[in-house]
Amino acid sequence: MLNIGVVGGTGYTGVELLRLLVMHPQVNLKYVTSRSESGRKVADLFPNLRGFSDVCFTEPGIDTLAQCDLVFFATPNGTAMKMVPALLEKGVRIIDLAADFRLQNTDLWQQWYGMPHSCPDVLAAAVYGLPEINRKAIKSAQVVANPGCYPTAVTLGFLPLIENALVDDQRLIADAKSGVSGAGRGASVATLQAESAESFKAYAVEGHRHLPEIKQTLSAVASHNIDLTFVPHLLPMIRGIEASLYATIDAHSAGMSLQEIHQLYVQRYENEPFVDVLALGTLPETRSVKGSNNCRISVFRPQQGNVLVVSSVIDNLVKGAAGQAIQNMNIMFDFAEKTGLEQVALMP
Amino acid sequence: MLNIGVVGGTGYTGVELLRLLVMHPQVNLKYVTSRSESGRKVADLFPNLRGFSDVCFTEPGIDTLAQCDLVFFATPNGTAMKMVPALLEKGVRIIDLAADFRLQNTDLWQQWYGMPHSCPDVLAAAVYGLPEINRKAIKSAQVVANPGCYPTAVTLGFLPLIENALVDDQRLIADAKSGVSGAGRGASVATLQAESAESFKAYAVEGHRHLPEIKQTLSAVASHNIDLTFVPHLLPMIRGIEASLYATIDAHSAGMSLQEIHQLYVQRYENEPFVDVLALGTLPETRSVKGSNNCRISVFRPQQGNVLVVSSVIDNLVKGAAGQAIQNMNIMFDFAEKTGLEQVALMP
Amino acid sequence: MLNIGVVGGTGYTGVELLRLLVMHPQVNLKYVTSRSESGRKVADLFPNLRGFSDVCFTEPGIDTLAQCDLVFFATPNGTAMKMVPALLEKGVRIIDLAADFRLQNTDLWQQWYGMPHSCPDVLAAAVYGLPEINRKAIKSAQVVANPGCYPTAVTLGFLPLIENALVDDQRLIADAKSGVSGAGRGASVATLQAESAESFKAYAVEGHRHLPEIKQTLSAVASHNIDLTFVPHLLPMIRGIEASLYATIDAHSAGMSLQEIHQLYVQRYENEPFVDVLALGTLPETRSVKGSNNCRISVFRPQQGNVLVVSSVIDNLVKGAAGQAIQNMNIMFDFAEKTGLEQVALMP
Amino acid sequence: MLNIGVVGGTGYTGVELLRLLVMHPQVNLKYVTSRSESGRKVADLFPNLRGFSDVCFTEPGIDTLAQCDLVFFATPNGTAMKMVPALLEKGVRIIDLAADFRLQNTDLWQQWYGMPHSCPDVLAAAVYGLPEINRKAIKSAQVVANPGCYPTAVTLGFLPLIENALVDDQRLIADAKSGVSGAGRGASVATLQAESAESFKAYAVEGHRHLPEIKQTLSAVASHNIDLTFVPHLLPMIRGIEASLYATIDAHSAGMSLQEIHQLYVQRYENEPFVDVLALGTLPETRSVKGSNNCRISVFRPQQGNVLVVSSVIDNLVKGAAGQAIQNMNIMFDFAEKTGLEQVALMP
Repeated sequence: MLNIGVVGGTGYTGVELLRLLVMHPQVNLKYVTSRSESGRKVADLFPNLRGFSDVCFTEPGIDTLAQCDLVFFATPNGTAMKMVPALLEKGVRIIDLAADFRLQNTDLWQQWYGMPHSCPDVLAAAVYGLPEINRKAIKSAQVVANPGCYPTAVTLGFLPLIENALVDDQRLIADAKSGVSGAGRGASVATLQAESAESFKAYAVEGHRHLPEIKQTLSAVASHNIDLTFVPHLLPMIRGIEASLYATIDAHSAGMSLQEIHQLYVQRYENEPFVDVLALGTLPETRSVKGSNNCRISVFRPQQGNVLVVSSVIDNLVKGAAGQAIQNMNIMFDFAEKTGLEQVALMP
Repeated sequence: MLNIGVVGGTGYTGVELLRLLVMHPQVNLKYVTSRSESGRKVADLFPNLRGFSDVCFTEPGIDTLAQCDLVFFATPNGTAMKMVPALLEKGVRIIDLAADFRLQNTDLWQQWYGMPHSCPDVLAAAVYGLPEINRKAIKSAQVVANPGCYPTAVTLGFLPLIENALVDDQRLIADAKSGVSGAGRGASVATLQAESAESFKAYAVEGHRHLPEIKQTLSAVASHNIDLTFVPHLLPMIRGIEASLYATIDAHSAGMSLQEIHQLYVQRYENEPFVDVLALGTLPETRSVKGSNNCRISVFRPQQGNVLVVSSVIDNLVKGAAGQAIQNMNIMFDFAEKTGLEQVALMP
Repeated sequence: MLNIGVVGGTGYTGVELLRLLVMHPQVNLKYVTSRSESGRKVADLFPNLRGFSDVCFTEPGIDTLAQCDLVFFATPNGTAMKMVPALLEKGVRIIDLAADFRLQNTDLWQQWYGMPHSCPDVLAAAVYGLPEINRKAIKSAQVVANPGCYPTAVTLGFLPLIENALVDDQRLIADAKSGVSGAGRGASVATLQAESAESFKAYAVEGHRHLPEIKQTLSAVASHNIDLTFVPHLLPMIRGIEASLYATIDAHSAGMSLQEIHQLYVQRYENEPFVDVLALGTLPETRSVKGSNNCRISVFRPQQGNVLVVSSVIDNLVKGAAGQAIQNMNIMFDFAEKTGLEQVALMP
Repeated sequence: MLNIGVVGGTGYTGVELLRLLVMHPQVNLKYVTSRSESGRKVADLFPNLRGFSDVCFTEPGIDTLAQCDLVFFATPNGTAMKMVPALLEKGVRIIDLAADFRLQNTDLWQQWYGMPHSCPDVLAAAVYGLPEINRKAIKSAQVVANPGCYPTAVTLGFLPLIENALVDDQRLIADAKSGVSGAGRGASVATLQAESAESFKAYAVEGHRHLPEIKQTLSAVASHNIDLTFVPHLLPMIRGIEASLYATIDAHSAGMSLQEIHQLYVQRYENEPFVDVLALGTLPETRSVKGSNNCRISVFRPQQGNVLVVSSVIDNLVKGAAGQAIQNMNIMFDFAEKTGLEQVALMP
């Protein structure tokens, strides 16, 4: 049994991670830390866990966490980078569900996160935890940077197009929409039910922190800088991301049929346990992945024109956060990759 | 492995049963029948099941269903009673999630369900599948009548009060509220999202079919006829039932403290795997049981008066339907009672 | 044109009051105060008001407010009572949408609101602003205590039964449910959409501040102390209150038919512009009053038993707050009572 | 007073039209027809209208409708074209809220609506009722084709860019999202609350009937054929459309600043009573127009790149249907254009 620590277990990413960990057959949830809730039973804060775990929140501390084989950080940005170097010295492996290790370029990181990075050397060694791209590196990584929710949906949706250089990668468009759990569990007026439940809006149109993350990954895949317009929107529901992706077919690929393009998607993901390419003409809906680690993808070519449309859906808290973290853990510790992640989505 | 048939797998009770069955380690889902969807893959209709089952809908037929050890009916009322006698002859055991075998009195059944009962002898032998009351009888039953959703929440909430004869059982009040999945998956104007999603109302105030069911169970517990006012309401959400129960303390028990009454609840359910009595002063919320088979209960005595208030919550599709059916199956076939029912509720 | 001041215009009661005031043909919205938003355009905070008002938030101050004929307080409890005496001296009339002047007994007020009352003499002279009971006193009142949302729905529902002494008024039960806008616009975890939008629960079962308010009004109607169990619940929707009321028919009225009782309701409210008694057998739904000042009521006698069930619905922000305040203003200033309140509910 | 007939008053467009008509000071609602509900009081079907109208549904008939000055059709596609010629002969003017007169090309109409058009001459004379483009023609029109909901939001959002030839109009992208009321009031599984309320998906990606309508209007504005990718999505809420529009700045306009482009929007709409261009940096949300006839628009240029992003919001049932129809009526009959349309949006 793997001994697990969770730093920052009071947000939505945290409680989702706890839900998955208590159902995982090969781990022992040893520590869950929270400064604000220290001493309280985790199941008192999150009653869905009653009967599944007796663990109490504790103060975060290197010495206690050092007793773990693996520590997850489900903390605000900027927290993990303060503690990770000390834990690495103790031999603890790390999965950070925040953004501290996602952008390889420290200047870019500072520009988007508003603070200097405190451990650039750890950042340089961290592996971006998107298994569909980096499975092998994840296996041996000491620090895994768990991808953002939007980047997971958008990257998996564009990936076969970019890998095969089928489209104009200088004018990609991603119109993405997320349920309100993506905004976190902090008290806030903007996501009160009375504010957000019967409304819809775009936000952060000028620039969202997930933009450089998506560009970094897709540029690495393309071996040159791609360009992307990324507009996130807030959905009046709890869980789920849908990204509608638009790309123009390059002149040299204009002769490919939609069937051939669809086949590239099918082949690209046929061995991926959590990416499901739907049949041509079928559209994914977010509820088909609610509570599950799946990403479902469809590709379209409306009116036989030159614009491809891809729709990609995930549960932002599972494949977009905690489930992907478990998948990364399974890879890092040689568990079967689907262990603890075989829940069927809740429908209706 | 137990061979399982499901008759009527296209409604919400059906798809929830399928969700739980494909995750159950000791069953083989052999047949799922539907006249309207025959030949179609179950996972095409319910994409949450993609990757979990390749079974296709088939026409319902006695000969094929006779190859199963257990057949679940998730059909409209009046369907099971037509097919069950033939299946019993073939040695198949039955769990009916509809109402065909819930009311022991055939006249009462006909009065509330508007048709004569076609197999009164089977009805007489059927066991009401509320494990907290009938576990022993369920174990050997050939036909289990799986309880209604409201009756499960209301009966478990009142049970310790009635068993201990603490309250005036001639004027019980149950104000119950259910999510819209309780209204089923049939096309209907009343539960279109645009109709029901930002509204709330009582319905069936004059009399709901679950009223005689609750009265039958509690009267049997009390060994005399109890009386109940039962008012159901439609909640603008998908899953969950909350029942607020009101009962006046009898003169002879007025001296009991709330602590003592609470203790009776704790003791009554301490060995029940799926009933969770909350600490005094704590209130249950439906989301704490979303997707799980738990019933959570609290008891209050507002203003130290003579009226006890009990709040009881379940997921109407799980403990109120499919989950309880799995629990009954586990009991009937000597599986550990929690097998396949250890999902943590999805929160948020 | 009446000059109007609104103290505390940043909450849901406040913005709803502003919505109704800018559409009212006989008022001039002169001041809207807010310490936190001072200097900002009201329409910047509440974009639904763009094009309807150019007023900016100002600091609250007696001298400016003294230029108004009428000042509404849409402030937290305890604020109005600090400012009202000075405004009264300047001849300004007051409608308080908070609770400062609702309970006539200062000890009781202190017990439920946790602070001593700072102007008991003003409290003694204040009129409880439920027009259906106090229309004449409201007309000449200097200070109107606008009723709470739950008390409006519950009191109007019970009123004909209590006025006619038809029921056992020592064991009334009110099971009430409110949309989340009732919890206010303050940042809070409990009413984040991700927390409250797909869940339902009772709260404040031990005692809610609206309990003494309801008891005060109904006791005055009955000319003796009535007793009531009042359990509020949080609905997963934005606007609307439904109260299901339970009362046992007294022995001496047991002979009355439901038709006769229904007729008492019809007659009681036939001249009331905002109370609508539905036809027998018809149930009200909250959406039928969304955005409107109506209260709709039905009365039932399930199974011809001795328990009457009344269902009463309002929009908590309109008849339960801002709309009733406008109605009170219309009465106080001899405007036609429906002026500015003739919006049709938004449906769907 | 104008005598008004409404054909087909049982859908969401119909009931919204009735809501607005009963509050309009210059009209007399004379007939509301419905085959299925004939004889029933309109207010019995739509209780929000109780107290506002005593009109009953009647059978549709030319002779009765001929007594009206204006007839609205809120019927399924293909119904109006059967009745309109006879009504025109009687001198009745027409506003069709369905699609019968929206596409000028009859072949295109037949291709998208699957039936031949029965009165091409009337079609040829009909005016597309988008006041922001066709106000003068609407004034004298006998038949107004009220625009579709998506086309209203998308066209108003793109209009200043196309009129000023600022962008590459051969690769416009419109990612549009609509609340479920857009799917209508017909019984259907897909928009049951349990299906659609906690989910999100794209639909009709291959081609939606509103695509040729948008292309027709924008092409006429551009004086050549524009090209557009239009992807609609179903939002888990009741009312509201948001369209996120993407367009690449043409080389010759690349030097324009965002401020200049924004200014073009401000100027284009400064005299429009129902189009509100927000300040730079401000984003519209659908709730700010809920129940109101406004369209609110923002324009962005993310990361100072070459892609402009426009966000346009309307209430699909108001500016997207019934409110725009009232606006057209006001223009046709020389009423002040805002008459009956000055409701403030309901917020929260």
